[in-house]
Amino acid sequence: MRTGSEYLQSIREMNLPLYIDGGKVDNALDHPAVRAAAEAVAFTFDLVSDERYRDMMTRTSHLTGEPVPIFQHVPQSVDDLVAKVKVTRFCNRRLGICSFRCIQNAYAPLLYITAKVDAERGTSYHRHAVNWIRYMQENDFLACPAITDPKGHRKIRACDQPDPDMYLRVVKKDSEGIVLRGAKLHQTGAAISHEKLVLPCTTHRRGSEDYAVACAIPTTTPGLIHISVRHSQDDRRVEGAEIDLGNFRYGVHECVVIFDDVFVPWERVFLCGEVDYLDEFVGLFGSSHRPTTGGCKAGWADVLIAATQLVARYHGLEDASHVRDKLSDMMAISETMYSCGVAAAMHGYELPNGGYVADPVLANNTKYYASRAVFDLIRLAEDITGGILACCPSEKELRNPEIGHYLERFFKGAHDVPAEHRIRMVRLIENISWGLGSILHSATHGGGSGQACKMELFEFSRHAPHRAEAMEYAQRLCGVMQ
Amino acid sequence: MRTGSEYLQSIREMNLPLYIDGGKVDNALDHPAVRAAAEAVAFTFDLVSDERYRDMMTRTSHLTGEPVPIFQHVPQSVDDLVAKVKVTRFCNRRLGICSFRCIQNAYAPLLYITAKVDAERGTSYHRHAVNWIRYMQENDFLACPAITDPKGHRKIRACDQPDPDMYLRVVKKDSEGIVLRGAKLHQTGAAISHEKLVLPCTTHRRGSEDYAVACAIPTTTPGLIHISVRHSQDDRRVEGAEIDLGNFRYGVHECVVIFDDVFVPWERVFLCGEVDYLDEFVGLFGSSHRPTTGGCKAGWADVLIAATQLVARYHGLEDASHVRDKLSDMMAISETMYSCGVAAAMHGYELPNGGYVADPVLANNTKYYASRAVFDLIRLAEDITGGILACCPSEKELRNPEIGHYLERFFKGAHDVPAEHRIRMVRLIENISWGLGSILHSATHGGGSGQACKMELFEFSRHAPHRAEAMEYAQRLCGVMQ
Amino acid sequence: MRTGSEYLQSIREMNLPLYIDGGKVDNALDHPAVRAAAEAVAFTFDLVSDERYRDMMTRTSHLTGEPVPIFQHVPQSVDDLVAKVKVTRFCNRRLGICSFRCIQNAYAPLLYITAKVDAERGTSYHRHAVNWIRYMQENDFLACPAITDPKGHRKIRACDQPDPDMYLRVVKKDSEGIVLRGAKLHQTGAAISHEKLVLPCTTHRRGSEDYAVACAIPTTTPGLIHISVRHSQDDRRVEGAEIDLGNFRYGVHECVVIFDDVFVPWERVFLCGEVDYLDEFVGLFGSSHRPTTGGCKAGWADVLIAATQLVARYHGLEDASHVRDKLSDMMAISETMYSCGVAAAMHGYELPNGGYVADPVLANNTKYYASRAVFDLIRLAEDITGGILACCPSEKELRNPEIGHYLERFFKGAHDVPAEHRIRMVRLIENISWGLGSILHSATHGGGSGQACKMELFEFSRHAPHRAEAMEYAQRLCGVMQ
Amino acid sequence: MRTGSEYLQSIREMNLPLYIDGGKVDNALDHPAVRAAAEAVAFTFDLVSDERYRDMMTRTSHLTGEPVPIFQHVPQSVDDLVAKVKVTRFCNRRLGICSFRCIQNAYAPLLYITAKVDAERGTSYHRHAVNWIRYMQENDFLACPAITDPKGHRKIRACDQPDPDMYLRVVKKDSEGIVLRGAKLHQTGAAISHEKLVLPCTTHRRGSEDYAVACAIPTTTPGLIHISVRHSQDDRRVEGAEIDLGNFRYGVHECVVIFDDVFVPWERVFLCGEVDYLDEFVGLFGSSHRPTTGGCKAGWADVLIAATQLVARYHGLEDASHVRDKLSDMMAISETMYSCGVAAAMHGYELPNGGYVADPVLANNTKYYASRAVFDLIRLAEDITGGILACCPSEKELRNPEIGHYLERFFKGAHDVPAEHRIRMVRLIENISWGLGSILHSATHGGGSGQACKMELFEFSRHAPHRAEAMEYAQRLCGVMQ
Repeated sequence: MRTGSEYLQSIREMNLPLYIDGGKVDNALDHPAVRAAAEAVAFTFDLVSDERYRDMMTRTSHLTGEPVPIFQHVPQSVDDLVAKVKVTRFCNRRLGICSFRCIQNAYAPLLYITAKVDAERGTSYHRHAVNWIRYMQENDFLACPAITDPKGHRKIRACDQPDPDMYLRVVKKDSEGIVLRGAKLHQTGAAISHEKLVLPCTTHRRGSEDYAVACAIPTTTPGLIHISVRHSQDDRRVEGAEIDLGNFRYGVHECVVIFDDVFVPWERVFLCGEVDYLDEFVGLFGSSHRPTTGGCKAGWADVLIAATQLVARYHGLEDASHVRDKLSDMMAISETMYSCGVAAAMHGYELPNGGYVADPVLANNTKYYASRAVFDLIRLAEDITGGILACCPSEKELRNPEIGHYLERFFKGAHDVPAEHRIRMVRLIENISWGLGSILHSATHGGGSGQACKMELFEFSRHAPHRAEAMEYAQRLCGVMQ
Repeated sequence: MRTGSEYLQSIREMNLPLYIDGGKVDNALDHPAVRAAAEAVAFTFDLVSDERYRDMMTRTSHLTGEPVPIFQHVPQSVDDLVAKVKVTRFCNRRLGICSFRCIQNAYAPLLYITAKVDAERGTSYHRHAVNWIRYMQENDFLACPAITDPKGHRKIRACDQPDPDMYLRVVKKDSEGIVLRGAKLHQTGAAISHEKLVLPCTTHRRGSEDYAVACAIPTTTPGLIHISVRHSQDDRRVEGAEIDLGNFRYGVHECVVIFDDVFVPWERVFLCGEVDYLDEFVGLFGSSHRPTTGGCKAGWADVLIAATQLVARYHGLEDASHVRDKLSDMMAISETMYSCGVAAAMHGYELPNGGYVADPVLANNTKYYASRAVFDLIRLAEDITGGILACCPSEKELRNPEIGHYLERFFKGAHDVPAEHRIRMVRLIENISWGLGSILHSATHGGGSGQACKMELFEFSRHAPHRAEAMEYAQRLCGVMQ
Repeated sequence: MRTGSEYLQSIREMNLPLYIDGGKVDNALDHPAVRAAAEAVAFTFDLVSDERYRDMMTRTSHLTGEPVPIFQHVPQSVDDLVAKVKVTRFCNRRLGICSFRCIQNAYAPLLYITAKVDAERGTSYHRHAVNWIRYMQENDFLACPAITDPKGHRKIRACDQPDPDMYLRVVKKDSEGIVLRGAKLHQTGAAISHEKLVLPCTTHRRGSEDYAVACAIPTTTPGLIHISVRHSQDDRRVEGAEIDLGNFRYGVHECVVIFDDVFVPWERVFLCGEVDYLDEFVGLFGSSHRPTTGGCKAGWADVLIAATQLVARYHGLEDASHVRDKLSDMMAISETMYSCGVAAAMHGYELPNGGYVADPVLANNTKYYASRAVFDLIRLAEDITGGILACCPSEKELRNPEIGHYLERFFKGAHDVPAEHRIRMVRLIENISWGLGSILHSATHGGGSGQACKMELFEFSRHAPHRAEAMEYAQRLCGVMQ
Repeated sequence: MRTGSEYLQSIREMNLPLYIDGGKVDNALDHPAVRAAAEAVAFTFDLVSDERYRDMMTRTSHLTGEPVPIFQHVPQSVDDLVAKVKVTRFCNRRLGICSFRCIQNAYAPLLYITAKVDAERGTSYHRHAVNWIRYMQENDFLACPAITDPKGHRKIRACDQPDPDMYLRVVKKDSEGIVLRGAKLHQTGAAISHEKLVLPCTTHRRGSEDYAVACAIPTTTPGLIHISVRHSQDDRRVEGAEIDLGNFRYGVHECVVIFDDVFVPWERVFLCGEVDYLDEFVGLFGSSHRPTTGGCKAGWADVLIAATQLVARYHGLEDASHVRDKLSDMMAISETMYSCGVAAAMHGYELPNGGYVADPVLANNTKYYASRAVFDLIRLAEDITGGILACCPSEKELRNPEIGHYLERFFKGAHDVPAEHRIRMVRLIENISWGLGSILHSATHGGGSGQACKMELFEFSRHAPHRAEAMEYAQRLCGVMQ
């Protein structure tokens, strides 16, 4: 298992070129925005290496029999599922942002579906998947899930789009492997991961076989082009700000990744054309991933709540009844997000040949709840923080000797708290709310939109035994059924 | 372990007088409103006796070593806590109302606090408590928690109230026992329980020692007077309605119980004057009880959702996009209530000399969430059900041969569903929403108001390690702390 | 203009038979539930006759040139539209329930559409409508809008329903008039009105001409059969309760009205078969009626808020910060409902040959807002009121000399407020919340469901100039359009 | 009346120095962030000059008898109050941001209170105020309200703060005038206004007389120091971006303004030490200003809704049921904000010696509603817009010939809409949501926080006759009062 600095070194050695700021940097890690994201990942590696957290942070791999970071583990029990939710909250509470370690959520569904396809279609995908996961575990690599397709006109299916590349597709197959063309968007951590796990972002129907592809690709594979996106306040990181960043050490970095005819050898292919299995696979991946949201957003929210409470303290208002009331609501929301994730994990079940996945109804419920709740959190935080959140001077002005002394006086709240402390805390709230470490965006659309989760919650509920039972008892209780 | 009919027989034998409808019935069970509540309890006894549910419904008592209904068990593990939430949802989904089996939630806090008081004060309350719980287990008795005091002016403490009996108090103590005077309100199931477990409804401070009393009393003890309350639609039960009841078999029954100088022997006294322990005890009881709400309201909501979906089906609207959308929201709310309860249980911990209790923050969060969520459930149900919910003819009109045939025609939705089915289902929704089996009231104030839970959530959060951690990391992330 | 007692006398003289409680009463007014509704109407007549309110309560008819109650007036200005919202709030704040005086909202759309049909189809409906409205004004009659059809399977159009009478229809036409068959449901005040104004409840398409009918019918017309519905707590009125009613003078009464081949002479027919005009007419009626909701629910809410505040006062909690906070929210909600109604009226416009109607977007917005807001009001009221709302003893027990003295002691809050006062106020809250005068039902579905209003809001917004302008400027601001 | 270009020229001539980006620019208008704000103001001047809008945009001054822009007018009727709400919505719908023209809202309260103080204290403030307003009208100047004090520890009153300058105060008074020391924060448009109207941000009590000061000051007065604040994305404006700005022409600019011993001659002083009048004055100003919020946020929201609908169209999802549903909710929210503002204005009343001000309860309700509603708007916009809102590439990448062609392909939605259009629209939504033209911040705290408005709503409701009436009728209806 790598330390944080070993991880950083390995990313440096990838020497990945990145298009950003209108140009191209030769080694993505040289860019401060990328570096801040890599530092967050490095922190999670250090947690795993830390003796104090060893029990929480490691598991014994069922594939290798060796200890692996929990982030590399295929869940082998309900406890493993629950642990993932808890660990994510634990990490995000220390980072104030995404911890980038969710690839594991795809492992069990991948093992299960590949075994099922193999059994029915005579393929050998399961072996490929096992080997790749073992490779991930043995090398302690970070993989980035490459899922979201451009999608074009949302009502037109992949094979009928005027531009056939609006969903990533296989343009060539031969005895060696396959060639991919298209793009994957919203790639969190793409430039600081060793591998990509390519998965379909939606199900497809017959006729769209070329789009039913899952595989793993090293990040440095020829044909992959990484283009940075522009976040709300990433200019500040480029500028070398500290106070104005709020969270000055850690950040999030996201890419568009172009697949310009990328070759993937067969031994790294997990699905190729088997559209009939996508409904199940996509549903399982959602169920497997979405409980993590409960821990992820709760961890973030923990920081937001604490920062808000500290600002209230700086204002002398920590004990004002309406402030306490609103802080209570923030806590209630964050504990509810967490509870949903934990309960989804706790109701998980074993997949044949795979591992454990969470209950699909409760998993989708978690993400659906979180997708709306974060807006309430941000509203309450902004309410308590006050107008300074929108009207705060820059550290550049603070450090201007002509005027800095005025700001130091007039941006104090309680007399014994330096204005700079208050401003730093306000900038952290800004960062977490809609800046570089935003809860908003990740909660709304990351890992599937709230709307998608709501619809899946309904679909999975059709098959939930307690819904059928309730249908029966509703009829019995009122006498429609005897 | 008793069957349902044995339970009913035992209640009949109590021959409890009850003031109701302006008069007095000699045996409460003779009154149809009481009977409907007793039938609900009987159903839970039958579930315990049912071989199919034996594993779910029984546990081995750590006191007697014998199998006992889970409702009589002192939780000995986190799994026991979780099971209580699940079982409550399971029962309520079959009853459409309260299942009356929550007394167990007081056991662990009672065992713990009595042991603590004994150790520090040299009393023998713990033995009394152990004996009483064993007695409850051995006889498989139902006990009613007698908690809510009249409270008078809410800002005046018990000992300063102009009327000293606004909180139940000890008016006499001697070598035999104590004498209680006052009243306990909102006593769900008081007339169909074998025992009362008297507990303080709030903490008290020094000076109010007479009000710090916990004990157990047989329901038929002299000096106890049971007075029925009047619910929204209980006239219909008296009238002998069937369709108009919605839930025609099961009901809820509640009493005011007057304590007109009731003697309690010492061996049934668990606290008497030890005000210093009330803060902890009251807090523990809340934490122990409130996760059950998650299962309780989810079970009720299951019936409400099913009934609403059936009405939508009768209207030909089950697949209308806005109906599906609203049903999804109802399901999401119910699963969130349940998830909160389960998570609170899952984060439970062991109390010395007691058993297990749930996490206090997550427990209070559960009740706080549910106290508001039920109004959204009812709003959505009413929205989908339509105007018929408020404007439905009585079964008396349906059965009037002069006009019944008109109603049979014009109260049909889909042609192949009899109007009576539609009306029965609508009446069930009415019943569950604000009638006899109302979610509303129980969720708002039963087991502590939402406001109380919100305040306790905040107080317990002060001591939650993850809140302290977040305070530290908020400061580290923005540079206020190194 | 009639006084209240003249109105009551005129209803008595109608001698309308009513099916209720499984039988038939010869004169509906003899039934206490009907009587309570009639008393509410009588109160509005008295307000009109009261010199103090003359300016507010009367207008000069543009048809007769004589003063008429505002409830009989065809709005001739935006001020008239606004006045209707204000007057409704004024009345309902005094009644705690519906004031039954909304028929006027149909007048302007009726005059407009009949003139339009006449001009294009050579009919003489407009004259019929003018004459009938003048007749209403001259006699100061109450009319009940007869709108809601049974509707059967909601996805099947009227002419394709297996039972052709699921929407009221014309089964015969001759030189004298037309014959109607079917039913109208949810008829608020049907048994205490002199007239019915029959209108289609939805639009129809070609093929359903028989269902496109509007006309006026005296309530005592042969073939009309009035059947009472059963409300939540109307048994209490029959029983002769006072305290337990909450609002002991005034009530709401609703009927199912069967049309068993009812003859209507041509001079009272306003539409018969002109399906092409229904889209516009139904939309206009909605726009005309729905601003009233803003005043109607705000007036009710005023009583609910006051009652809740009084209970808080009785509990000694009026100044508790969380109580003040919740009362503030209740006030905010009620003022927002009212503001929406007022603004919709204020943006009204003149219809040719008709009068004024409100802005359709703002009108539908009013009802959509109110349809959800009332649940928040009731939630907050229940939250503040406490458990007593669900567990209150009956006046029958209060008056039982054996136990009444206990209840008088233990149901006190503040020592100087009699328990009976507290109980009466709690019963009023019960009544207003989900009892006989419920805000819930009327706000959810009365005058069109929230869902219908939301959909119409969207449809009318398609044609709103400010939406088109915003589309243009959104494109200009970001440079998509020059 | 000035044109936009005349306005810009006059600001250029002020040659105001501004501290920004760590340095100092000699003429604030040279900075692109300031310039973008000035362009927005210029647009409002052009609207006034535009013949098409003359009626809407001008009024006859009651002071000069000459036509003045509505923004300079002292409201002389309820219609004037309503017009202000409408005009603000009209402007903001074209700007997508603040229109900076709210100073007028202070005029009527200022005229009223100065006359009252003069009458009771023998001062001559009213003449000063009249003269200054006439001066504003004759020169068609823009004034910036200088209200928000630093406030220090919020629970300590001004005169007891450890640093006496935490509220702006008078440090010297002589026969010529007064000298001010302190700061005013969150000064929207301070660097592009000709004048400042200094007002207290809160009431003060006896002992804090030095803090009770109102006056007008030219922006270029010696001792005033303007320091820019740093917004979410203003770096992009400095960089010269276009697409990435979303709203590339118009912006908001805000300052901290230091008062380093600023001299104000008596003829420009409107209050100086009269603490006893602050309660009334501060309340009146709130009531006068807050209805504008209804138009202001609705105008902004109009752009947000249109942009969201256009993105949905680009995605092929405009007719998806859940999208239509959410757009309907956005429209409902925006119309409700507007309705609240309009109703508050419509219930306005005349102040002696002043002009008209809005109803205080409805005015505070408007702002309280809007302060929460904007978060729902942003949530719904983000929900519909999708993940691209957080993961959008920069125009710098779009314009990089090596990779721009990829982005042009893969950021298309519907095939016939260029990717750049989609990206521009997404950037507009970003801008309006939490970027430079954010609804969030202005709605939450601009013009008084939601919490302050809620508390004032409650306080003013104590004196509202309809609340007293409801108290009476609640008691009558249930029989507590005869």
